[in-house]
Parts: sequence; C-alpha cells; structure tokens
Amino acid sequence: PHSVFAEAPVTIFEKMSGLAREYGAINLGQGFPEDPGPLALRERAAQAAVHGWNQYAPSRGLPELRQAVAEHYNRLQGTALTTDQVIITSGATEAIAAAVMAWVRSGDEVIVFEPAYDAYRPLIERAGGIVKPIRLEPPHWQITAQMLDQAIGPKTRAVLFNNPMNPAAKMFGADELAALAKACAAHDLVVISDEVWEHVRLTDRAHIPLATIEGMRERTIKIGSAGKMFGLTGWKVGFVCAEPDLLDPVARAHQFLTFATPPLLQTAVAEGLAWDGAWYAQMAQGMAERCDYLRQALVAQGYVCLDSRGTYFLNVDLAGSGIAMGDTDFCEAIVREFGVAAIPVSAFVSDAGQGNIVRLCFAKPETVLAEAAKRLGQARQ
Amino acid sequence: PHSVFAEAPVTIFEKMSGLAREYGAINLGQGFPEDPGPLALRERAAQAAVHGWNQYAPSRGLPELRQAVAEHYNRLQGTALTTDQVIITSGATEAIAAAVMAWVRSGDEVIVFEPAYDAYRPLIERAGGIVKPIRLEPPHWQITAQMLDQAIGPKTRAVLFNNPMNPAAKMFGADELAALAKACAAHDLVVISDEVWEHVRLTDRAHIPLATIEGMRERTIKIGSAGKMFGLTGWKVGFVCAEPDLLDPVARAHQFLTFATPPLLQTAVAEGLAWDGAWYAQMAQGMAERCDYLRQALVAQGYVCLDSRGTYFLNVDLAGSGIAMGDTDFCEAIVREFGVAAIPVSAFVSDAGQGNIVRLCFAKPETVLAEAAKRLGQARQ
Ligand SMILES: CSCCC(=O)C(=O)O
Ligand SMILES: CSCCC(=O)C(=O)O
Repeated sequence: PHSVFAEAPVTIFEKMSGLAREYGAINLGQGFPEDPGPLALRERAAQAAVHGWNQYAPSRGLPELRQAVAEHYNRLQGTALTTDQVIITSGATEAIAAAVMAWVRSGDEVIVFEPAYDAYRPLIERAGGIVKPIRLEPPHWQITAQMLDQAIGPKTRAVLFNNPMNPAAKMFGADELAALAKACAAHDLVVISDEVWEHVRLTDRAHIPLATIEGMRERTIKIGSAGKMFGLTGWKVGFVCAEPDLLDPVARAHQFLTFATPPLLQTAVAEGLAWDGAWYAQMAQGMAERCDYLRQALVAQGYVCLDSRGTYFLNVDLAGSGIAMGDTDFCEAIVREFGVAAIPVSAFVSDAGQGNIVRLCFAKPETVLAEAAKRLGQARQ
Repeated sequence: PHSVFAEAPVTIFEKMSGLAREYGAINLGQGFPEDPGPLALRERAAQAAVHGWNQYAPSRGLPELRQAVAEHYNRLQGTALTTDQVIITSGATEAIAAAVMAWVRSGDEVIVFEPAYDAYRPLIERAGGIVKPIRLEPPHWQITAQMLDQAIGPKTRAVLFNNPMNPAAKMFGADELAALAKACAAHDLVVISDEVWEHVRLTDRAHIPLATIEGMRERTIKIGSAGKMFGLTGWKVGFVCAEPDLLDPVARAHQFLTFATPPLLQTAVAEGLAWDGAWYAQMAQGMAERCDYLRQALVAQGYVCLDSRGTYFLNVDLAGSGIAMGDTDFCEAIVREFGVAAIPVSAFVSDAGQGNIVRLCFAKPETVLAEAAKRLGQARQ
C-alpha cells in the first residue's frame, strides 16, 4: 500500500449503512434524519437549479451565503464575524480536510480527544502529523487541565476539537473550555473546532462556541455544517470561520480539494440561515423528545444508556446492561440477526480492542425507534 | 506559513474571475460556458431536490450513477468497466486530490507535463511528492520518448497526465500515448489521467482514452467530469474509473476529503449519461464553431493564435502577434483597461518568469466573443 489512505479501512458509517441495506435493517448507525428536510429549502434549491447560476461558484463561496453565515453566528452566538472571515466548503468533512491540510505539517503533533470522529486520524496522518490522543472516559467524558498538560509537548502544534462531541453525545462546559483555552495559549496552539452539532442540543444547556472563550478567537478555526443545521446531510455544504490569518491557508487548501461548492445548494442554505432561532429551538426540541423516546424504549428492554447532551446519538452501555459481548461483535450480530444497524464506539478509539458502548441514532420517527428497541430487546434474550 | 497550501497563491482562475467582476469585464478566463446548461438535467435535479433523497449518498456514489458512468464509457469509448470500477466524487478536482493523496507518498517523484493545470503541483507537494515537470513546447506540445527517459528516475512513482490538455488545447495522438505507455510499463508507474475534456474535441480526431492503450488499463486512474460533459461546471460531480486495486485507495481518500456527493446532482447526471453520442457530437460541434469564430475575429484584429484541438480554450501567441509584453502583464492590463479577462499560460509553468501565450475561453455566445475580440483589437493600438 502506498499511503495512509491505502491502509485506511472503509469507514464504519459506510460499512454499517452497507450492511443495513444488505440485511434490510433499521439504520440507526450513520447519523442522518429519516425525514426529507425542510421543504422550503428543497424548493429553493429546485428553483435555483432551474433559474439560477449552475457554473462555478467563487471558490470561497457565494458572497450572500458567506454573509448569511456571518450574520447567523453573530445573531445567535454573539460573535462579530465579517464576510471575509467565512468560506464555504463541500461539507464539513471537506472543511476539516482543508483545515488539516493547511495547518498540520510533517512531524507536527495534534491533540485529539477520543472517542473521535473517524476522519480525524487519517487526515492528520496524511498531512504528515502525529495524533496525540487524549482518551475521555464515560459517563462524563471530562477534559481536565492535567490531561492536557500530559499530552502537550514541544512538537504539539494543533488541537482537533469537537463540541458537541460525536460519538460521546457530550457538550463541554465552560470549565473544560477554559482549561483548553489556557493550554492553547500557553503552548501557542491552533484549534480546528468541529462544531457541526452546535444546534443539536438536547438539554437546556447552550452550546459555547470555542471562539467566544477569552483568547481563543485568534486561534480557532471553527467548522459548521448546513447539513446538520437543516437536517439535509446529503447536501454537503460546510462553513469555515476564522480570522483571515488562520482562514486564508484553509481557503487555499479548499481551492485544490474541491475548488467550489454547487451554487444551487449555497443559495438554498443562505435562505435557511436567514431563519430565526425558533427553527433551531424547535429542531433541538424534536430531537430531545426522540432521544427520550428511544431511551425509555431501551430502558424498558433492560438496557442502560449514557447521557446525551447533544448530537443525534444515544449511547448504550453494554456492560452496564449486563451484556458481556464487545461492541463490535454486538453491532455485527444485531444488524445480521435482528435487523438493527448501530455503530460500535470502539471504532473511534486508537487502540484496536473492542469496547462496550454502542451508538444509536435517534433522528428517526418514533415508530422506527419503537421497532428498533423491540428488536434490541429480542437480542438480549 | 505552515504548509504548502499556506504558501500557495489564490488560483489564477479565482484571481481573474475576481478581477472580471471588479472591472465588469467579459470573462474569458476561467473555463465555463455562458449558457445555463441542459434544462432537462436542471429540471431533473429540481425534481430530485423536492421529491428525492437529500441525506448522505453512499460514499462511492449512487449505484445508478456508477452504473451509468460505466455504461457511458463502455458504449462511447469501447471500455469494459464494471460498476465496482467507478466512484463518484465532488468534482474532478476532488477526484484528482483523492488520487494524489492515495497514490503519492513522501519522496515520490511525479511526472507532470507543463503547462499543467494549476492544482497538480500543490496537491502533489502536499502529499509529500516531488514534481518532475516535462515542459512541452508550442505549437505542437509534442511528447517524445526521449523526454520521458530523461525525466523518469528510480524515485518516479506516478504520472499526472491531462488529455485533452488544458491550457495547451492539445489532443495527444496514438504515438505519444504509446511512448507514455512504454515508459510507464518499463518503470512500473501509475498514471492519474485527467480526461475531463474528453468530449470537448474541436477537430475530427477522436479522444483516445489512456486506459485503452495496450498495457495501460491496469495502471490508469481515469478521471472524468459531468460538469464538462454537460456544461454545468458548478455542479462539481466527477468520476474516477480504475481497476479495484488502483481505485480502492482513492475511494478511501474520498471518504475523508468529502465523504459523498449530493444525491440530487448525482441523479440528474445519471439521466444525462443515458443520452447517446449525439449530445456530445453536437456539443463539440458547437464548441468548434465558437472556437473558429473567436479565432477569425482575433485574426481580423491582427492576432496570431495557436491550434486548438480540444478544451474550451484558444491560445493567443503574443510574440507572434507582435506584442512584446509578457502574458501576465498583458492579462493584468486587458482586464483593467479593456474589460477582457484571460489567463496567462505562464501561470501553469514551474519557472517563475512570464511567457507569451494567453488563454481565452470561447464557450460564450458569438456576440460576447465579437465584443471581446474588438476590445482586444483596441488593446493593440
Ligand atoms: C459522513 S457519514 C457520518 C455521519 C456522522 O456524522 C455520524 O454518523 O457520526
Ligand atoms: C476550477 S476553475 C478552472 C476551470 C478550468 O478548468 C479552467 O479554466 O481551466
């Protein structure tokens, strides 16, 4: 094999969605809502396809969308972004890739909190970087200053942070963010802050954007996702927000990774971003209800679940539920034998062994969640 | 600066399109057609936006599109592709990025024919590779066995090839492809073959797909572009075709660069690919007519042009036209003073100096080409 990508596996999402299709299983693996997404935005995209511009967008994105992103965050998160501090990418995955390719050089160490989204490691390694994992532990997935002190060394250049955190379904609090900010300032680190789940909060606690923490604006590359904001995960429209010094190299990388993003989708997303906070409150409320629904249905089947503070995901504690199987084996078995696809959280951790946490996506109708819980109940028998 | 991308400039396309907007110039720089593209496909995309699936596509692409790509090439180019030999990417730029990230390791030398598309070098360098340029010369841009022998060494791992070649507007002939194939076999090289202009031929000469040359199927990673096939450059739907051994690492890289491509666009492109060869013949015929139109209009103004065999581009020979200015200076002057944006071909060549060839995109209505030629005539006075 020629590269880290050649050695990389098929992603766990692709693998489990493939098995779900193969076995006709209920797919609670890959994180996407089952409903079709807001009709108004799909109609706006349709109108733009027929009546709009279908040639190259500017590489940094349509000016109206860049402005809509800046205004959205300024309105809802108290930032003071200007249009030149925003670029548009072909999804948040491309945004992360561009940020890593722009900011991680050969030999740089990059802090990653595990369990970590599965694209982080191959991208950092493909850029020549070295992953320094900090393993967070359930049930609180707490970051401490001590962990940071231990992991950061003279070669540490960057942190790849995710808040709310997938797959842990964790929202980091002000104390944890302050500890991170202090370490970043002390060691002059850049943070690539993947905040794609920012609007999918499941409790009253608000998401705290990392750039709003004292001293962090000038070292944070913030990544957002229209797919997650509007439940249109297939559209692949992402944002990167940062001060020009940090952003410009990311914009350069983006030029060579995809160059630009389809204008019809950008136009529709700009319309969605003009909506007020009620949209996100309602979406988060609906998600919190489904999370509770799935939790109760699983508890009724004898399962023990961890807390979910954000994201589309609820984690089952296999050991706590009295199941001795490893998470990978469990997921392989339930998709084949009981028709439920899920994600083993050990797929997001560096050491190769199995763990005992299984991630379920609850962004589905209650009837689907009820049937999945019933099948998972059968799997216990 | 932290990376090769941090040092990379704004692309010449982005720069000239920005100047064109700023000065209200006719934009014959960046290559895109002025017309809106086939209505049937834009309507199909609209229908898919409203009635179709708007969540994640499979990472390798929708099965119906992968099959449509295979059948398209099998029907029109005599290949024998199967669906598992095709993946879909978010444009050909992403396809090139994924192929380079998958196949170029640190220290690998990669042959590139110059003048070369401007994304090749930063991608190869970001992957840790070393560009070995082979400089082709106008007016024939001929590849010879001797050039290959001189450039290929023990560390050479790959070739990044482009046919039809942008910006040279060249179609390589059977002899040149045979010389390339011989060198690749002798030195066990992989070829990333960017054939995005395959259907935009301007003479009777057919495009010869590299994979159809004896011995090349098993070493060619072929890249195609729906944007170029259908004149919808904003859609950013690309294809990679190769035998599984070559393709699988590219699919892995794609997982981490964008993961997947919007399904509404994939659905519409699949419909277009079912069209027969008449579409491409008609498109190529229209392009050839506009090329001739622009050439004659420029000749009438005293300009000397090079041959154009493929692509959307016609090259003006400044020196031959009696203009002593360098191509970069000329392009800076004409966009500001005469309202015509063009691309200096020296932007595609490794050594830093100016050249004397200026690239013009003729995929525009005749009225626009006429006005541009008139303005370029004024620039001579
Ligand atoms: C790109 S597929 C993965 C989607 C997602 O965010 C998840 O399931 O964690
Ligand atoms: C990605 S913008 C450049 C488009 C193009 O192929 C060209 O103008 O050469």
